[in-house]
Amino acid sequence: MSTLSRVRELAHHHDDEHGISVPVTRIPLSDSPGGAANEPLDVYRTEGPACEPEEGLPALREAWIADRGDTEQYEGRARNLHDDGRSATRRGAASEEWRGVRRAPRRSVEGSTVTQMHYARRGAITPEMRFVALREGCDVELVRAEVAAGRAIIPANVNHPESEPMIIGRAFLVKINANIGNSAVTSSIAEEVDKLRWATKWGADTVMDLSTGDDIHTTREWILRNSPVPIGTVPIYQALEKVDGQAHALSWEIFRDTVIEQCEQGVDYMTIHAGVLLRYVPLTANRVTGIVSRGGSIMADWCLAHHQENFLYTHFDELCEIFGRYDVSFSLGDGLRPGSIADANDAAQFAELDTLAELTARAWAFDVQVMVEGPGHVPFHLVRENVERQQELCNGAPFYTLGPLVTDVAPGYDHITSAIGATEIARYGTAMVCYVTPKEHLGLPNKDDVKTGVITYKIAAHAADLAKGHPGARNRDDALSKARFEFRWRDQFALSLDPDTAEAFHDETLPAEPAKTAHFCSMCGPKFCSMRISQDIRDRFGGVAEQAAIAGMQQQADAFREAGGTVYLPAPALRD
Amino acid sequence: MSTLSRVRELAHHHDDEHGISVPVTRIPLSDSPGGAANEPLDVYRTEGPACEPEEGLPALREAWIADRGDTEQYEGRARNLHDDGRSATRRGAASEEWRGVRRAPRRSVEGSTVTQMHYARRGAITPEMRFVALREGCDVELVRAEVAAGRAIIPANVNHPESEPMIIGRAFLVKINANIGNSAVTSSIAEEVDKLRWATKWGADTVMDLSTGDDIHTTREWILRNSPVPIGTVPIYQALEKVDGQAHALSWEIFRDTVIEQCEQGVDYMTIHAGVLLRYVPLTANRVTGIVSRGGSIMADWCLAHHQENFLYTHFDELCEIFGRYDVSFSLGDGLRPGSIADANDAAQFAELDTLAELTARAWAFDVQVMVEGPGHVPFHLVRENVERQQELCNGAPFYTLGPLVTDVAPGYDHITSAIGATEIARYGTAMVCYVTPKEHLGLPNKDDVKTGVITYKIAAHAADLAKGHPGARNRDDALSKARFEFRWRDQFALSLDPDTAEAFHDETLPAEPAKTAHFCSMCGPKFCSMRISQDIRDRFGGVAEQAAIAGMQQQADAFREAGGTVYLPAPALRD
Repeated sequence: MSTLSRVRELAHHHDDEHGISVPVTRIPLSDSPGGAANEPLDVYRTEGPACEPEEGLPALREAWIADRGDTEQYEGRARNLHDDGRSATRRGAASEEWRGVRRAPRRSVEGSTVTQMHYARRGAITPEMRFVALREGCDVELVRAEVAAGRAIIPANVNHPESEPMIIGRAFLVKINANIGNSAVTSSIAEEVDKLRWATKWGADTVMDLSTGDDIHTTREWILRNSPVPIGTVPIYQALEKVDGQAHALSWEIFRDTVIEQCEQGVDYMTIHAGVLLRYVPLTANRVTGIVSRGGSIMADWCLAHHQENFLYTHFDELCEIFGRYDVSFSLGDGLRPGSIADANDAAQFAELDTLAELTARAWAFDVQVMVEGPGHVPFHLVRENVERQQELCNGAPFYTLGPLVTDVAPGYDHITSAIGATEIARYGTAMVCYVTPKEHLGLPNKDDVKTGVITYKIAAHAADLAKGHPGARNRDDALSKARFEFRWRDQFALSLDPDTAEAFHDETLPAEPAKTAHFCSMCGPKFCSMRISQDIRDRFGGVAEQAAIAGMQQQADAFREAGGTVYLPAPALRD
Repeated sequence: MSTLSRVRELAHHHDDEHGISVPVTRIPLSDSPGGAANEPLDVYRTEGPACEPEEGLPALREAWIADRGDTEQYEGRARNLHDDGRSATRRGAASEEWRGVRRAPRRSVEGSTVTQMHYARRGAITPEMRFVALREGCDVELVRAEVAAGRAIIPANVNHPESEPMIIGRAFLVKINANIGNSAVTSSIAEEVDKLRWATKWGADTVMDLSTGDDIHTTREWILRNSPVPIGTVPIYQALEKVDGQAHALSWEIFRDTVIEQCEQGVDYMTIHAGVLLRYVPLTANRVTGIVSRGGSIMADWCLAHHQENFLYTHFDELCEIFGRYDVSFSLGDGLRPGSIADANDAAQFAELDTLAELTARAWAFDVQVMVEGPGHVPFHLVRENVERQQELCNGAPFYTLGPLVTDVAPGYDHITSAIGATEIARYGTAMVCYVTPKEHLGLPNKDDVKTGVITYKIAAHAADLAKGHPGARNRDDALSKARFEFRWRDQFALSLDPDTAEAFHDETLPAEPAKTAHFCSMCGPKFCSMRISQDIRDRFGGVAEQAAIAGMQQQADAFREAGGTVYLPAPALRD
């Protein structure tokens, strides 16, 4: 049994007054060498309760939503042959296997708005807000106020009652998103559900389903019913499939129908590339890498083919009305983001950002939640400007960035090139960072890549939380370092972001079970250990006023030598 | 044959006037789709010429050194039974296998100094400086001036004539170091030589041999004779082996003898923990992780056991005299560096830094080259202070840091946690960063770990070069992004830091040979490609004044639709 399975205990924090219970991962710790107990550490958990994939998760929020009395269930849009894409080979098969609940879709009663922002602005505290406050360890009023101000969002479609509410905003823990989804080339429904569960097991806070291949509708249905985290999509992908990949054949009507379809399924946030305006397209002509956003280039193509303004921009208010009826959050897409270091922070990128700021204000007028997407590829010294500019222009609406990658020269390692940029941009206020896997630019991520991407981004997000001085963020670092110093190897593994890998690496050099409790490690062997001499120093000087300690040193030095004085010496690693 | 082998062409840049020839890696590029030629890109190369391990590299610098006429060859220190460590099982065996040159050691003639700093201060331009200038693509006077001022070092022991001169200083490309070396637990001479060659193949600028196990002397000999890059060591490790691991049994005499031994072998820089003063030791007592530097804890132990000041500090001037006779550079060790986020930037760390600044000035008085070591574990927002403080206190002496790691919670991924900190600290002026491998804190790195560590640190160093606006740094990014945009897959692989991995990842999804030239990739499949629409936009608007372009758009839109107007759409990755 791996360390991970041994140490991942599901526990709960409770708000008994309001009947709210939030799952956490509890990490039990062993005693210090001196016998002092170490309290277990509870850490934020995005992995939902276990379920069979074909049955889906329990509907945690169903009663909360119904009890508000402002929604109705209705028949919903008729299923359409195009919904699963033009070449869906297994269309229907996966639907037949479904053994879980089949719920009629829900929407607000005519004329009402059911967004968390709407409630927050009216001063109402929802169970979703209480859940979030308990999860973040903060006051619920902070949650309400930040959502009301638009500085944070709680993506929570009324048709995704399985989701465990979470918040995206700079006042809260930095979040990470993992992208999954099939393409025309690879991957099946079961694989995508498996990636979803795998991503949340390692800590993805939201997941985007970017499928463009077979069974788009059905894949998304299975993902939603199995997802404890908010699900995001880019509806233009599915709309494009419905017109056989011909961008110019797209229309507002086809797009609108696709959005309704996804609203009814329960998608929590949608990327909308409404900022790619006709007049901005020529600004990309002399870039090194033109338009690298898929959605951005679809809309650019449509604008050029029709010589008309982007229909997402001209119909934006209608979108706001729809989103307000389901509580779908906007993720305003940066279709003109830079795809190379050379194109960073250029006129096209910042022109679009101005429009995204305008659209943010328009959505807020409908009480619809908004986050704004950001780049991309940006050299390290230009990263900070991106978030500061976005925060100012968009009045603090949450920023959600892809990396950014700080160099173009390392395909195969872009989880790393981008984690460097992600840490910097999150430090200055970006609320959520979208992971990049080692396969970026090269292929579709497999399960290992998904895990590597998630862990790498947990590092970036946590490093940013530390840099921001987020309350409690350092607890895990301190607990792990204390365990390391005290040679509590098992605790060190258990407290790490990836216990399995930590233990496996340790075992490569020193596999024997006794080495897990040995007071040395493979880097120096039994004769050496800097940790031991440090412990010795602490035993002599710790807790004593330093002056007194130094005064007494000669005496102790003598005693030390007399006692045989061999200290197991140095080094926790291959270091001087 | 892998991409790497196909594309790594050894070429040379020449300074014919002075007979200097610097190897570079030439990356030939194919033509752009329109037929325009792309010039090959020459990149900095640390991999030396090929040689048989048992014969060693040619002595590039031998004539340069001899021609200066200020050195003499001499018999050298007698070989001692202790040199290879207390338990050397194969002592002598490896020496017998050696088939290369056996040179008598060289040192300055009595009373003279042979350091690059000494020459630079007298206004002399050495072949080493010319080599460096050609390598860096800068004026040789910049090299001389920076070395003279102490702001850069050229580690170049007269007994390591095989080394290709390189420079460490903030005005130059950021460098990376890779640690290798055996321990009591694992590893053999052949493995270490293999790691050395592997590390330089991927771009390590210097290598430290941190061996503490068997055959210390002989392992180092083989490493030096095979190394085209400067070799650093921590002589206190070998000295400790000579006293059977009993720190208190160390003495200046034993240490001095070890230093001479290593000077004669050709070690280019040595970590000297002379800043761990007796009075600083109690400052570490209440740390979460005490003293984590092996050298630091050895010296702390010695100070406490004897209640005397650190003998490295009290004998520092003698060390300077020795180093000046061989041109060994100081790497002033930060024995009190923090080993956890909790201990970062604390009193112990900064007290030692004050002493390192004092020692820097003392070494400079002897014309001895110096760099200063830095942390360690530091949260992201406190990283910058480290380099700015060091640069100010040490009057610009090169800073050489270990990461720093920006969180403690990710053992198994500390190449990443530390690359984030390394990028930040290098951006603000750190001249060299010491790699951290995925095995940090857990075990000794194997060959794969060495490669991962080196590539990760090449990323950090290059990202910092970009952020600093270093001349020419962006050329490789631009060339790679242009190749990506033009679907020149082979060029994209060839230009990447790790062509083999990039190609292997690509082939996982689309292994067929035609896919290497296909104008699409696996992320979207043949129907989609944002790169194509961008190319289309460029064809229409590139090079034309934007106003004119927009005015003509309607006309072109019509023509585009009439021509059949299907654009292969979106996305270079799993992205919106």
